[in-house]
Amino acid sequence: MIVLFTDFGLTGPYTGQMKAVLIRHAPAIPVVDLFADAPAFQPRLAAYLLGAYFGAVPRDGVLLGVIDPGVGTDRLPLVVRADGRWYVGPDNGLFELVMRRAAAVEEAVEAWTIDWRPERLSASFHGRDLFAPVAARLALGEPVPGTPVPVERVRRPDWPDDLGRVVYVDVYGNVLTGLRAAALGDEVELEAGGRRITRARTFGDVPVGQALWYENSNGLAEIAVNQGRADSLLGLVVGDEVRIVG
Amino acid sequence: MIVLFTDFGLTGPYTGQMKAVLIRHAPAIPVVDLFADAPAFQPRLAAYLLGAYFGAVPRDGVLLGVIDPGVGTDRLPLVVRADGRWYVGPDNGLFELVMRRAAAVEEAVEAWTIDWRPERLSASFHGRDLFAPVAARLALGEPVPGTPVPVERVRRPDWPDDLGRVVYVDVYGNVLTGLRAAALGDEVELEAGGRRITRARTFGDVPVGQALWYENSNGLAEIAVNQGRADSLLGLVVGDEVRIVG
Amino acid sequence: MIVLFTDFGLTGPYTGQMKAVLIRHAPAIPVVDLFADAPAFQPRLAAYLLGAYFGAVPRDGVLLGVIDPGVGTDRLPLVVRADGRWYVGPDNGLFELVMRRAAAVEEAVEAWTIDWRPERLSASFHGRDLFAPVAARLALGEPVPGTPVPVERVRRPDWPDDLGRVVYVDVYGNVLTGLRAAALGDEVELEAGGRRITRARTFGDVPVGQALWYENSNGLAEIAVNQGRADSLLGLVVGDEVRIVG
Repeated sequence: MIVLFTDFGLTGPYTGQMKAVLIRHAPAIPVVDLFADAPAFQPRLAAYLLGAYFGAVPRDGVLLGVIDPGVGTDRLPLVVRADGRWYVGPDNGLFELVMRRAAAVEEAVEAWTIDWRPERLSASFHGRDLFAPVAARLALGEPVPGTPVPVERVRRPDWPDDLGRVVYVDVYGNVLTGLRAAALGDEVELEAGGRRITRARTFGDVPVGQALWYENSNGLAEIAVNQGRADSLLGLVVGDEVRIVG
Repeated sequence: MIVLFTDFGLTGPYTGQMKAVLIRHAPAIPVVDLFADAPAFQPRLAAYLLGAYFGAVPRDGVLLGVIDPGVGTDRLPLVVRADGRWYVGPDNGLFELVMRRAAAVEEAVEAWTIDWRPERLSASFHGRDLFAPVAARLALGEPVPGTPVPVERVRRPDWPDDLGRVVYVDVYGNVLTGLRAAALGDEVELEAGGRRITRARTFGDVPVGQALWYENSNGLAEIAVNQGRADSLLGLVVGDEVRIVG
Repeated sequence: MIVLFTDFGLTGPYTGQMKAVLIRHAPAIPVVDLFADAPAFQPRLAAYLLGAYFGAVPRDGVLLGVIDPGVGTDRLPLVVRADGRWYVGPDNGLFELVMRRAAAVEEAVEAWTIDWRPERLSASFHGRDLFAPVAARLALGEPVPGTPVPVERVRRPDWPDDLGRVVYVDVYGNVLTGLRAAALGDEVELEAGGRRITRARTFGDVPVGQALWYENSNGLAEIAVNQGRADSLLGLVVGDEVRIVG
């Protein structure tokens, strides 16, 4: 399986062109859209989101991750192996949390820079021209078309283990943070949008219209409002600070 | 084929995570998105929409329907067999019109509650954790992992055969009602948004900017405006009343 | 592979119903969404967009193109063979630029009107009822269910080779024109939204907040703003004029 994690948005031809390349190279491999609206141009925020959602990729599957504000510059194209999964995308920290979570449970992590170049490489769309063909090859079990690099060279050791920022706002207006709920106590309150928010197990545990935070189905601390939209009630957008208090 | 009918929205990881589960369990079964924006949290409205669109599912195919405001409560997980098709989702009336339409043509209707539980069942995402694995099994021809229940136990006999409500607004601003056009005469007018609307065969039969209602390609009475948006002209949103007059 | 190019939008059941038909007829053929938001009801604008993006379709693949404001009138249903690819859709000019680009490099171009009709043909959804079954047949290698017509009968010789109009606005607010960049010199400026815009190689070549035009990854002249949205800064929407100056 090849799983897509991009900021291409839902409209327009970007995801479709990339899928057409994947299918041309690997017709028998299913392709799944995980996020097409990961934090645009913000690989650091996106890294914490991916760190909670990579489980959608099966073992030996490929995560094709394209949040790539540096396309056309000299940032390196990267392949990472972590948790028994492949990750393909730019070397800008997007895979930092995936590598860190794997390293924390003593799983082997490996990295390669991609040496292969297509005949025609556009300046602005390496997702289609470079990363997709490499992802297809890996999904087919072919060797990495690149050179091993020491993992330390592509890590971001100064980034925190959990990030007190909004990393995603979902279709219901729920606000996903870069904080793992399991790292926080039951008594912990979050402060965001000028309010303090207490933990609950589920929406129904608080009155209608009240904000709460809870552990979402992927383990992140998520802020919601019972029968309302947390993003508009609290005025929160991707990138905003979320502080741990209490 | 597995066909998806949900209120997950187009953005975010919900549909993608569910598809990843389906593909992991049943890699050879194609998955088709029918609606990702069925009436959110409103299984009754959604039921009338599904009652007109289930034909996209082939015989022996599976409709995975997740409009599930009661997730995490004690509402039962359900499998229904009607029209030679499988339906998997919560027991909240979502499949009522499908069962009713099948029963009306004397097709057999059967129902089961799902006994199987996954190793890890999140509180908020049974679509991914419970319903998707069951849908995959049924698509593979495996037996229902549940207990038969008398169909009467999961029916909603008090619901009307046709619903005078807006059940969907499409991308062009056309307004789908829960009324079947065949149940209405040619002289019938609809009243919605404070206006009376006459029937026409197609857009071009009325002047530019005028509202009409007609039988849409799935048999529902649909309100539209020639070269305009009916939703904004008439101020209609999902759930609004549509009255039969004249 | 069957590639979709429509104005059905992302929401609603239209694309899903069409895919369900494709998969029922040709279960082993992958289907890719290229554009679901091509210029709505405007086949002429859409034709210039398609003329730049058809390369996503592999040789012997099928492009199913449905921008069909004339559905229900007497416009003919069409199959075109150009560039070794199949095109299926309405005879309204949508495939003009594809045919013209192929003819320009002396590739054979052929056309057929579709004679086959389904048992049930809705008045408003030929994409699902007529074009999708034909696309599936062609993808399976079956003969065209139609009658050859002289290509001149379905061409639009009066249309220009390049179109000075906005043909698409992407998710980032970038503005795609119907002008091929290769047809324009480096010194050429574009005038749109009341401003003159100079060419650059990439975003970073101009100051933050400034507009530029450049050759996009599919060869079109595209107007963008470094770290901004060109559509809102310049007040541009699909169909607006873009003049070549300087």
